Amino acid sequence: MGEFDLIRRYFTRPTPRAVLGVGDDCALLQSAPGMQMAISTDMLVSGRHFFPDVDPQTLGHKALAVNLSDLAACGARPLAFTLALALPAADEAWLESFSRGLLALADTHGCELIGGDTTRGPLNICITVFGEMPAGQALLRSGARPGDDIYVSGTLGDARLALDALTGQLALEPAALQRARARLELPSPRIALGQALRGIASAAADISDGLLGDLGHILEQSGVGATLQASATVSCLACTQPGLPEAVRMRSVLSGGDDYELVFCAAPTQRAAVLAASASSHTPVTRIGQIDAAAGLRVLDDDGHPLDSAYASFDHFA
Amino acid sequence: MGEFDLIRRYFTRPTPRAVLGVGDDCALLQSAPGMQMAISTDMLVSGRHFFPDVDPQTLGHKALAVNLSDLAACGARPLAFTLALALPAADEAWLESFSRGLLALADTHGCELIGGDTTRGPLNICITVFGEMPAGQALLRSGARPGDDIYVSGTLGDARLALDALTGQLALEPAALQRARARLELPSPRIALGQALRGIASAAADISDGLLGDLGHILEQSGVGATLQASATVSCLACTQPGLPEAVRMRSVLSGGDDYELVFCAAPTQRAAVLAASASSHTPVTRIGQIDAAAGLRVLDDDGHPLDSAYASFDHFA
Repeated sequence: MGEFDLIRRYFTRPTPRAVLGVGDDCALLQSAPGMQMAISTDMLVSGRHFFPDVDPQTLGHKALAVNLSDLAACGARPLAFTLALALPAADEAWLESFSRGLLALADTHGCELIGGDTTRGPLNICITVFGEMPAGQALLRSGARPGDDIYVSGTLGDARLALDALTGQLALEPAALQRARARLELPSPRIALGQALRGIASAAADISDGLLGDLGHILEQSGVGATLQASATVSCLACTQPGLPEAVRMRSVLSGGDDYELVFCAAPTQRAAVLAASASSHTPVTRIGQIDAAAGLRVLDDDGHPLDSAYASFDHFA
Repeated sequence: MGEFDLIRRYFTRPTPRAVLGVGDDCALLQSAPGMQMAISTDMLVSGRHFFPDVDPQTLGHKALAVNLSDLAACGARPLAFTLALALPAADEAWLESFSRGLLALADTHGCELIGGDTTRGPLNICITVFGEMPAGQALLRSGARPGDDIYVSGTLGDARLALDALTGQLALEPAALQRARARLELPSPRIALGQALRGIASAAADISDGLLGDLGHILEQSGVGATLQASATVSCLACTQPGLPEAVRMRSVLSGGDDYELVFCAAPTQRAAVLAASASSHTPVTRIGQIDAAAGLRVLDDDGHPLDSAYASFDHFA
C-alpha cells in the first residue's frame, strides 16, 4: 500500500464544514464573521506518551483527545484538525484500528479531518486542531483575579495511578486498574464544559502536566497566587481502593498529569452560573481553593496548616 | 534547561498579527472579513527528510520552507505557523541554530510562530502553517483544462543531484555540488509567485515528490492528461556540469523531488499575464507542455516521439 492509497483509505472523509479537505496542497477553512479561530498542536511519541504496544484504537482516541482538551480550555467549539503521522511501516491492521478510534472521537465532536502528512519513521503522531469562538470570548490563562474560586472538572489523578500500576510501581485491584486505565487511555476532553464557561470563568487551562503545574501557568500569567484545600482536592481522586497511601493519593491528584480535565477560576458571584454550566454540560466540578493576591501556591490541610511536600509538575526536559 | 525555558528562550516572539501567540492552551487567529484560511502540515523525520548531521540552521529553514511552499501552491499569503518538535535532548547549541534558521525565514515571509509543542523523542519536526487569500481565489489542483499551458517556476532537479552526490551515487565538481546542495538544503518557497498567479493560473501544486508525481496530482484531480516537451523540461536543470548523462538529467528533473518549485497551468490567453506575474515576483518560469483531454502523461522529444523511460515519483511507503 502506497502513501496516497493509505491516505485515501484511512484518512479521507467528507468535510461539509471545511471549504476544502484532504487532497490539495492546503486545506481551506472560512470563519463566520465575528469568530476567532483557536489553534493548538500536540505531538505524541511512542514510549514517552504511550506504551509501544498500546491498542491503536485507544491511541487514535487519545491523540485527538489531548488536542481537543486544549480547545476545551479556551472554550472553543471544535471545527477541524490535521494529522501528521510517522510510521515504521504501513501496517493496515494498525491503521484501521488507529483511524477508527481517531475518527470516532472526531465525529463525536464534529471535528473534521482536513489534511495531514504521512511519512516513514519512528512512530510519532502530531495533530493540530482548530476551533472557534466569538471574538474576545476565549478563556485565557491570564484572567484570574484575587478572590476568585478555583475549580476542577471531573476527577484527577487516576491516569497516574494507572501508569504507576502498569509500570509496576503500585498494586491496584483489577477493577480499580480497569477504571483507572480507561482514564489514562481514553480521556474525555471537556468540550461542552469549556463552551458553557464562556463569560463565566475568568481563566482556564487543561490539566495535562498535573494540577499544580497547569494551575501554576494560570497563576504566573495572571500575576497571582493560590491556596488549595487539601481535602477538597484529594476528593477529586476517583479511585477508592482501600489502603492507598495518602501520599500516593495526594501526589496523583496534585501532580499526576494526563488528566485532561479543566482547572478554572471564577468570581464567587458566579457560583450559581458555574453550577449551571456544570449541569448543562453534564460535567461535575469541584471547588478546591481560591486565588490570592500573594504569589505562590499553598496547599492547606483542614486545620489550615500547609502541606510540606513539594509536588512537581511534569516537564519533558527536566 | 526545562521545557518551558526552552520554549521561552528559543520559540517565543511577538505576534502582532495573531490575537494570541505562544503561551496559552491555544493560539488565536482572526481572519479579515471575506478571507479564507489555507492550512498545511508537514512532518520531517531525521534520516528520511534530512541527514542526521545536517546544519541545524539550514534544517530550521527547510522545515518551514516546505510548509510555506504549500501555501505558495495555493496562492496564499503566509500568516502564522505552529511548531511541534521531538528532540533526543535539549541541546542549546542545536536549538539556537535551528531556531535562527527557522525564524529568519519566518521573518522574511511575515509568518508568525504562534504555538507549538516540545517533547523528548527521536528527532521529528512537525510544522502546521496558516495563510490566507480572498474567498474563492485559492489555486487548486483541480482546475486544469485541456489546452492549458503547463509551467514550472525556477529550476528543477538540482536538489536530487545534490542528494545523489552526497550519498556517493554521482560525482559533482565542488562548485556544482555547492550550488546543488543549496537547492537541497535551502529551498525558496515561491510565495510571491503563488500570490501573483491568483486569477491567472487554472491549477497549481508545489513540487516536493517530483514533477511527474506532483503534476500527476493535478491531472488526476482535474480529470485531464498532459504532454511535456522533453527539451523544455530538461532545460529547467540549473546544473551545467559537462558529462552528466542525459538520463540522469532527465530523471532529476522529472522525478527528483525536493524542488519546492511550483508547477501550474494557465490558458494560452494568459501567457502575457503569466509573464507579468513572473516578472513582478522576480521568479523565472518555463513553459514545458500542455494539458490534454486524453488521460495520461506523455513526454515527447523534439521529433514528437515519446520517451520510453518511466520516471516514478517519490512515495514514502512504496
